[in-house]
Amino acid sequence: MNSAPIGVFDSGVGGLTVAREIMRQIPNEKIIYFGDTARVPYGSKSKETVTRFSKQIVRFLQTFEVKTIVVACNTASAFALDALEKEIDIPIIGVVKPGAKVATDVTRNGKIGVIATEATIGSRIYSKYIKELNKDVTIYGKACPLFCPLVEEGLWQDPVTDEIAKRYLTELIDIDIDTLILGCTHYPLIRSTVGKIMGEGVTLVNPAYETAKELKELLADNGLLNETPPALGENQYQFYVSDGAEKFKRFANSIIKYGILSAKTINIEEY
Amino acid sequence: MNSAPIGVFDSGVGGLTVAREIMRQIPNEKIIYFGDTARVPYGSKSKETVTRFSKQIVRFLQTFEVKTIVVACNTASAFALDALEKEIDIPIIGVVKPGAKVATDVTRNGKIGVIATEATIGSRIYSKYIKELNKDVTIYGKACPLFCPLVEEGLWQDPVTDEIAKRYLTELIDIDIDTLILGCTHYPLIRSTVGKIMGEGVTLVNPAYETAKELKELLADNGLLNETPPALGENQYQFYVSDGAEKFKRFANSIIKYGILSAKTINIEEY
Repeated sequence: MNSAPIGVFDSGVGGLTVAREIMRQIPNEKIIYFGDTARVPYGSKSKETVTRFSKQIVRFLQTFEVKTIVVACNTASAFALDALEKEIDIPIIGVVKPGAKVATDVTRNGKIGVIATEATIGSRIYSKYIKELNKDVTIYGKACPLFCPLVEEGLWQDPVTDEIAKRYLTELIDIDIDTLILGCTHYPLIRSTVGKIMGEGVTLVNPAYETAKELKELLADNGLLNETPPALGENQYQFYVSDGAEKFKRFANSIIKYGILSAKTINIEEY
Repeated sequence: MNSAPIGVFDSGVGGLTVAREIMRQIPNEKIIYFGDTARVPYGSKSKETVTRFSKQIVRFLQTFEVKTIVVACNTASAFALDALEKEIDIPIIGVVKPGAKVATDVTRNGKIGVIATEATIGSRIYSKYIKELNKDVTIYGKACPLFCPLVEEGLWQDPVTDEIAKRYLTELIDIDIDTLILGCTHYPLIRSTVGKIMGEGVTLVNPAYETAKELKELLADNGLLNETPPALGENQYQFYVSDGAEKFKRFANSIIKYGILSAKTINIEEY
């Protein structure tokens, strides 16, 4: 069981920032990554739809006998995690709880901002988790629907991204938050733009990093850590998508420096 | 049969610009509109995926015994029209051919530009149709992936949209095209931005308008025009989506001034 792979999924490429952190922090683990590129994005869609899609993906990942599943998408974590937990008997973690936990730990003035998709903000999921940890903290959510398309277009450092980020972030600056959660897995890629606008006094929380950290603990607690490095020539990281494997591969290789050998397309609607 | 509705579909809201033209030009007709909002956008996806999605939608529209189908999406027209024609025995038209025809008619210097999604540009479908009509015309395609998100964010007239449009359009200006096809159904909504940048010497072709015109001729030729105005209280325009009916309704009401009473969500994967 310890040598079984970890299943990681996202609506598309964003979850690769989470996969990258897992690769860094627990380098012995195997990963089966699924990106739902045929139906991306999730962030503008409803709870029912995102939950239905997520259930199909979990069924697909289970065909690899994964030992745990990481929901590497904030929207799917917000909408579907509860429903998924009821369906499977292996550990499953999302990206929202680890990010919420760290933000609650680091805030000094009790004002936390969250930037995310419309769906994640609308779900108020970060508020819910943070309030459970500390009811005196106030959470300010701001949907940033153009960030994902800008990241996918490669405008990670660009005057247009600066301008859009200023519009989205001004109200959070005015409110004087001291902690900002990057509540969408695409956003670590524009971390420097966001950081520059928010200023040095604001701590940016990257749930991708925190999730990998929590995953490591979860595996250790359950005696599931893989102690053995992958064998020479073993295919440690496998990537599946529902559309456009070549395009996914190109984008993935710009994020992950481990050399993605291939990505395969499958029909997720069959699961 | 003449009183049967027309089926119109798109990946989401963009096709409403086509529906709007049909409402204007043939006001007696009933319309069943489907927007695939659960899987939008199509413009970054593959031929196989877009064709599979389009076939499901056509099966859904046929449950209304539509007399004709309008593929009100450039990407679906580019990728799926041929496959769809083989599956059904009612007339079906896409938005590409009517736009290509008019552009070929109006160009004076034989240089036509096409702006569209990555998928439509990659398919080279406008080139194919235009070359069939006049092999001496040269076609310059330019993918504009950020236009759809900007339109959906409501930035129809905005400095950011100006800046992005300038980047996309500069090479077409340098090439000295005299005709530009708005090859995505979202683009008529930023027509004034595009027109301002291209200048008065460039004719903008709106396939939505041309498609409604060609649809009218097609119905007339087949004796299918509805001569009877809708009965008082009849539900002339019906809207279905695969996700987010409320959000769709809000956007639709900003485009169509006929008062959209309701939109219903259905699970398109079941078709």
